[in-house]
Amino acid sequence: MRTEYCGQLNLSHVGQQVTLCGWVNRRRDLGSLIFIDMRDREGIVQVFFDPDHQDAFQLASELRNEFCIQLTGTVKARDEKNKNSDMATGEVEVFATALNIINRADPLPLDSNQTNSEEARLKYRYLDLRRPEMAQRLKARAKISSFVRRFMDDNGFLDIETPMLTKATPEGARDYLVPSRVHKGKFYALPQSPQLFKQLLMMSGFDRYYQIVKCFRDEDLRADRQPEFTQIDVETSFLTAPQVRELMERLIRNLWLEIKGEDLGEFPQMTFAEAMTRYGSDKPDLRNPMELVDVGDLLKAVEFKVFSGPANDAKGRVAALRVPGGAQLSRKQIDDYGKFVEIYGAKGLAWMKVNSRAAGAEGVQSPIAKFLTAEIVETMLQRTAAEDGDLIFFGADSAKVVADALGALRLKVGRDLNITRTDSWAPLWVIDFPMFEEDGEGGLAAMHHPFTAPKAMTPEQLTHSPENAIANAYDMVINGYEVGGGSVRIHHGEMQQAVFSLLGITAEEQREKFGFLLDALKFGTPPHAGLAFGLDRLVMLLTGTDNIRDVIAFPKTTAAACLMTEAPSFASPAALNELAIQVVKKEKPESAENK
Amino acid sequence: MRTEYCGQLNLSHVGQQVTLCGWVNRRRDLGSLIFIDMRDREGIVQVFFDPDHQDAFQLASELRNEFCIQLTGTVKARDEKNKNSDMATGEVEVFATALNIINRADPLPLDSNQTNSEEARLKYRYLDLRRPEMAQRLKARAKISSFVRRFMDDNGFLDIETPMLTKATPEGARDYLVPSRVHKGKFYALPQSPQLFKQLLMMSGFDRYYQIVKCFRDEDLRADRQPEFTQIDVETSFLTAPQVRELMERLIRNLWLEIKGEDLGEFPQMTFAEAMTRYGSDKPDLRNPMELVDVGDLLKAVEFKVFSGPANDAKGRVAALRVPGGAQLSRKQIDDYGKFVEIYGAKGLAWMKVNSRAAGAEGVQSPIAKFLTAEIVETMLQRTAAEDGDLIFFGADSAKVVADALGALRLKVGRDLNITRTDSWAPLWVIDFPMFEEDGEGGLAAMHHPFTAPKAMTPEQLTHSPENAIANAYDMVINGYEVGGGSVRIHHGEMQQAVFSLLGITAEEQREKFGFLLDALKFGTPPHAGLAFGLDRLVMLLTGTDNIRDVIAFPKTTAAACLMTEAPSFASPAALNELAIQVVKKEKPESAENK
Repeated sequence: MRTEYCGQLNLSHVGQQVTLCGWVNRRRDLGSLIFIDMRDREGIVQVFFDPDHQDAFQLASELRNEFCIQLTGTVKARDEKNKNSDMATGEVEVFATALNIINRADPLPLDSNQTNSEEARLKYRYLDLRRPEMAQRLKARAKISSFVRRFMDDNGFLDIETPMLTKATPEGARDYLVPSRVHKGKFYALPQSPQLFKQLLMMSGFDRYYQIVKCFRDEDLRADRQPEFTQIDVETSFLTAPQVRELMERLIRNLWLEIKGEDLGEFPQMTFAEAMTRYGSDKPDLRNPMELVDVGDLLKAVEFKVFSGPANDAKGRVAALRVPGGAQLSRKQIDDYGKFVEIYGAKGLAWMKVNSRAAGAEGVQSPIAKFLTAEIVETMLQRTAAEDGDLIFFGADSAKVVADALGALRLKVGRDLNITRTDSWAPLWVIDFPMFEEDGEGGLAAMHHPFTAPKAMTPEQLTHSPENAIANAYDMVINGYEVGGGSVRIHHGEMQQAVFSLLGITAEEQREKFGFLLDALKFGTPPHAGLAFGLDRLVMLLTGTDNIRDVIAFPKTTAAACLMTEAPSFASPAALNELAIQVVKKEKPESAENK
Repeated sequence: MRTEYCGQLNLSHVGQQVTLCGWVNRRRDLGSLIFIDMRDREGIVQVFFDPDHQDAFQLASELRNEFCIQLTGTVKARDEKNKNSDMATGEVEVFATALNIINRADPLPLDSNQTNSEEARLKYRYLDLRRPEMAQRLKARAKISSFVRRFMDDNGFLDIETPMLTKATPEGARDYLVPSRVHKGKFYALPQSPQLFKQLLMMSGFDRYYQIVKCFRDEDLRADRQPEFTQIDVETSFLTAPQVRELMERLIRNLWLEIKGEDLGEFPQMTFAEAMTRYGSDKPDLRNPMELVDVGDLLKAVEFKVFSGPANDAKGRVAALRVPGGAQLSRKQIDDYGKFVEIYGAKGLAWMKVNSRAAGAEGVQSPIAKFLTAEIVETMLQRTAAEDGDLIFFGADSAKVVADALGALRLKVGRDLNITRTDSWAPLWVIDFPMFEEDGEGGLAAMHHPFTAPKAMTPEQLTHSPENAIANAYDMVINGYEVGGGSVRIHHGEMQQAVFSLLGITAEEQREKFGFLLDALKFGTPPHAGLAFGLDRLVMLLTGTDNIRDVIAFPKTTAAACLMTEAPSFASPAALNELAIQVVKKEKPESAENK
């Protein structure tokens, strides 16, 4: 039905007769001539009609925005003065001689500019996706997926599909359950990840597996989460952790080169411990140069209990965060930051302005200065490399609260004061995570997942001192986002059982939930390691948006509803009857709009 | 950890030191030498150990089948007499000088030959997948997916993901439901296909979409069905049905060339009506040369009511099926075919043996001969092109029963008597399906789906005589399997409403279920058409298996259970409580084994 795409016309087509299909993006009726901007997937071209071609001109007068049309005409070069360098097709226009209105359009419920509420945009998603900006994101996503697949294919990875209707898995989040009709009272779970299946594929000898696959978590959603999300899932046999990282780093570096034309260079590596110490985060945004500096050793003897308490506590920490140029902050701004860190459990936020570095302790201004000796102040200024006009924030609490609070403050201040270099990329690997963290109920939880191998430990050593165990796990972080994470997996049954036991899973539960895994480990399991990237997150970074809904064709709201189709919806009694389930409590009708 | 794959060693490696990782496929201890066949993803190579390398030799004596090992050695050319032309690596062997047992294996619960029950194979799927035959199928599947993606990418199709948690759709089969935790009492449905989403993407202007995507149907399973299956889903704008078919035919032709090295040639086209008349099936296996031949016009006046009844009924049919060489069938075999057609509703199966074609009516043998004049017999023999030694079966009933019974008989006899050419490929397009069929309750059902456009009809004409409406739909059939199907879609709201109304969907239901579609049709919907292939089916054809479970890594049984993970399983009361649902009736514990 077409000979060319609108958006691909250029001077090489001049003089040719073309047939185009697409939409009226804009119409201007000048009386003697009618102009339209005509849009298709590839872009926009200017078309005009003149009264000499009466039929087409007459029909063109009926055109309105978003009519779907087909037209035939001749490509003309524009006069020099009419060239439009803002349009890819701006050197040409089409003189239309025949027009076919394929489908008319009612006035749109969305503005063509971007002032629509997100609610309206989600309800009329098919219209919102007509916006070139949105279409461009999904095109970029397709290109990214395609690039990743080719890289993986070219590196000997096999794309193998794993089941969607599966057994409840222990990734930690809540599963989506699917009632079984055949096995009444039983449920499938939608996978939180294909973790165990990909490990079993390694046990089957497939050596290198990948899949771009939907995963599901029934969690309360934040702006950057969706109930279903897409993972680039990878597993390998007989590769060490550094080899897996090298391969995956190469994938991401090549991807950035392909999509952004930018070279990320070699990724630095940082241990979890170092990341927490220097940045208060296990996914530090290295575009932000500020660092946390420990000063607890200076403060053990000061009379100020807020400092000396944590300084003398093995689990406490006192750290400083120098803000370059921060002395300009008003008292109000500083107070607001104080409120901000309370979100993270901090009880206050001490500060010190550096008016004259040369003057040492005399040159600073701080409510807590009176507690500090000149020597302490001088050492602090040295350690933080403070300069005139800087401000230093202090966190003093448990190590966790200090890391959380100053880590978050670091990011916020970095953004607020334009300290973070937003025009750059800062990738890194974070490695050497602890195997376990406290689960808040006196037990242990797996920091990564229960199938992660510890570094250089026997099952006996692990059982004896789990708190010292370092996991052979790694996260890839870019600009402060965890874009991927993985680990070397346990490939011996005794180690797997030791970890399960440390996590408080009884032998009986191990058998019931993971019997197939423990069985499989008996038959010559190869050493294996892998990683999963969040595809949505990568696309967000590569298309420059903070909103995950911008990179998904038909996303759900933070209340996990689809405003377009109005899913979820009530099921028929007959359907529930077949599934042998009953609804205990219905959502009230007035909230049925899934806001 | 390795320098080469076992299966890739050849004469070019002779003299090189290599490190291999893999599994012991077989071990032979000759006392003075120990031989193993070592297997990895790429294949098998012979390795030997000698006592001069004491450590390795000692360890090698401990090896058993399926131990996971790493070894280093030198590649040697085999003597001429020891070459093994059955092995890809049969010209070389590896003289191992160092051995590392990575992981030991218990004696396997599966035999290495293929005599295992399918139940055992599914329970120990990770072991079953080690069999080269199974691994080869999944490798072929990965190659097929990859080839399809590249073809689609190269032809301007965008890979766009559609939701898995969606609204109940009307594809006709039963949906899998997913209870919502946030919207208590409401349910998502897992998609039976992304049909409406891909149409919406066309409305958004994406022009060409594809996706290789999981789809779900909660139906009682047959051998070739799974609860979740994979579709190559395609949609285009501004292309006619012949253009879509040409493109998709090219994809499949190229795929066969790539995977099988065989050229399928240009696909013939056949209308639904012709397929039913000639083959009694809308997915005829053209490798079978037998055809149904109508003879009802000859039998209107015969005294045999079984024939004259259907012959005089507008909805009846009498047809003949000539079986080449069928006169050799015994009375018992003929009776068995008579029982076979009863499955399809036939009340009997008349037959006629052709002993001497030259003798005309005198040369045939048939229980019904007495009802037929010599002229009728002669005409029948002519029409069916019968030859000496043939047998003719007759079906006489409603047109539907005759098509079903003789269509199935045609396939069975074709297989039983080796008439079907099983070494060939027979693709075709079946087109011009009726829009509607009777739903068995006095109403109409959509033969394809309710979004299929009729050929050359206005909504008024359609409403006036739906029984005459031909759908602009097409199925691709290869060797009697429907491998893909699609249609031109309705792109005008009035037509869509007319179809909904003919299907008995009230205006209110239309609004509730399809409001978003009817809305979307108001805003300049482009003409669009598409198709979906069953990937599992294509892989089955391309890897030569009739069992869908052979081409899926982790399939379910016909009772929709996973014997390996034991899914589905019972959910915790806490989980059900959060979802606000209750189980009404539990599966009895003794049937909990998911047979």
